[in-house]
Amino acid sequence: MKRLLITGISGFVGGHFVQSIIRDNDEYEVFGISRSKPSWDFLTINPKLLNYHNFYLADLNDIPKIKSIIEEINPDYILHLAAQSSVAESWKTPVNSFMNNTNIFLNIIDTVRTMENSTRILSVGSSEQYGIVSEIDLPLSEDRTLNPANPYAIARVAQEQLARIYATGYGLDICCTRSFNHCGPGQTDRFVVSAIMKQFAKIAHRLQEPIIQIGRGDIVRDFIDVHDVVRAYKLLLMQGKRGEIYNICSGEGRSIIDVVMLFSGMYHMKVEVHQEQSEFRPMDNPRIIGNNQKIQKDTGWKPRVPFEESLWSMYEYWFKQNVAGTDNPEYT
Amino acid sequence: MKRLLITGISGFVGGHFVQSIIRDNDEYEVFGISRSKPSWDFLTINPKLLNYHNFYLADLNDIPKIKSIIEEINPDYILHLAAQSSVAESWKTPVNSFMNNTNIFLNIIDTVRTMENSTRILSVGSSEQYGIVSEIDLPLSEDRTLNPANPYAIARVAQEQLARIYATGYGLDICCTRSFNHCGPGQTDRFVVSAIMKQFAKIAHRLQEPIIQIGRGDIVRDFIDVHDVVRAYKLLLMQGKRGEIYNICSGEGRSIIDVVMLFSGMYHMKVEVHQEQSEFRPMDNPRIIGNNQKIQKDTGWKPRVPFEESLWSMYEYWFKQNVAGTDNPEYT
Repeated sequence: MKRLLITGISGFVGGHFVQSIIRDNDEYEVFGISRSKPSWDFLTINPKLLNYHNFYLADLNDIPKIKSIIEEINPDYILHLAAQSSVAESWKTPVNSFMNNTNIFLNIIDTVRTMENSTRILSVGSSEQYGIVSEIDLPLSEDRTLNPANPYAIARVAQEQLARIYATGYGLDICCTRSFNHCGPGQTDRFVVSAIMKQFAKIAHRLQEPIIQIGRGDIVRDFIDVHDVVRAYKLLLMQGKRGEIYNICSGEGRSIIDVVMLFSGMYHMKVEVHQEQSEFRPMDNPRIIGNNQKIQKDTGWKPRVPFEESLWSMYEYWFKQNVAGTDNPEYT
Repeated sequence: MKRLLITGISGFVGGHFVQSIIRDNDEYEVFGISRSKPSWDFLTINPKLLNYHNFYLADLNDIPKIKSIIEEINPDYILHLAAQSSVAESWKTPVNSFMNNTNIFLNIIDTVRTMENSTRILSVGSSEQYGIVSEIDLPLSEDRTLNPANPYAIARVAQEQLARIYATGYGLDICCTRSFNHCGPGQTDRFVVSAIMKQFAKIAHRLQEPIIQIGRGDIVRDFIDVHDVVRAYKLLLMQGKRGEIYNICSGEGRSIIDVVMLFSGMYHMKVEVHQEQSEFRPMDNPRIIGNNQKIQKDTGWKPRVPFEESLWSMYEYWFKQNVAGTDNPEYT
């Protein structure tokens, strides 16, 4: 059985990835590193798949510790999910964001380099790497010039460039993604669609007036369901070409206002929208839409989950939660 | 008197910068941070300009310490020279190289951000940021797409991108350079022209056979004398436009073989050249030549020191040293 190490396993995507492995009976022995315990209870899901011995609670900035863990696991595959992935947060704590996103990746790939084995690594990046783009560049292909516009995006660009030279310069087997905006149940409300769906759930529970608070409503993003993201990662771990970069996106753009209006219409719940100026960022990309032809061509992957279904599942997630309580800040 | 903080003051460029301030009677109170003591003896040069109280021996990775030092100095200007600036070294110790080149810069600019004063920062970058280039792109202008091809170059790209978003996103007063290959007396022999001139000095002292060892002889670089570099930095600190990036280069390309042949002809010393395969790097840029129109336009700067004069001064430096002894590894 192939040994798969997932960094950041305790997070939102990590949880869905492990659930997907169980559901599909994938032949992996799964190991996880994270600086926090998962909020999803993997220990009861399938103790054979992932047990206490396979989970390492560690700070990925701790070079000697990470080195010894990876050497002990000796993985065939590494799925690198660990990241501080909020753009808004990266403006507030740029040093922390940058270092957590580049240094930890570098620690991992440099450990693999010094181990001199053939571990295959999937490096997860972000659509934010494209930065400020012109209409003429949309939908964004992987060969477009990168022009990152926030601390998070700069770290992701550095990560991908490091991946590329570790692949070409040192011969490591690394494949990279540029993953567009995720959505799905379990996502923290630090991300916009989840924050919107949480508010709808609160309104339904009569815990909030029918007013949806957002930041800028006119920015356009390409949202992709986390189940489609996880399926893309599994395919790329197997079939992604060494040294190549793949967009993971729906190919469709939606403004934040449109997301609110869409769900408002689906649910027949009339709401007002308030754009909160204090939530505006120092700089922002007005429109980001991706082109997913490359991953389709190389792996056959296509997005399957309709956006409306993503919204329903997120709404239901929040509705079942005690939405009056605090979100679990670790479940990112 | 304006307060100028120089990071990496103990290095090759730092030494020349301080000498230039003394020579030109520039009105600066100079402060320095470095992780090592300078090999050039600034304490005896001009105790009023730079004394023990103005010199801080500190690791720029030490965030709390650097923060408190910068707050204490409260500089009007920061010239950020500190770097691990060897491409060859960055292939050998990529983690160390990357972290030393990005994290320390980030520590400095983030300290200035939180201090909320108007410190002007000159961020020194490198021609290596351009990476693998086509003949058609030469000479390289600042607007060319960056395609960094080694760990050092990736760190420098991240540094510049961070500088850019700290300027646009947080309003910091930062100006950036892309400095091409330096040469001049006092440069360590980890850099190619200095290594060549050291060998000529050894041959003159009859400490070496008339054979010059180099790595790849056909790679072309744009060499600029350190005195011209220092003059450019002084002009950019005053006149460089906020948020802008400036090439500092001669505009002329020379192959490594040509450098050997030029000095061999000047000195009438016939030598053989051996290209040492073990010194070849995993990847290398075949030709790098810069365009210096932008700095000429904005500051009036032009290179003044002929390349032949640079070679002579380097040769004389090495000839006067005990070339049989070891080079001072701190004098970079």
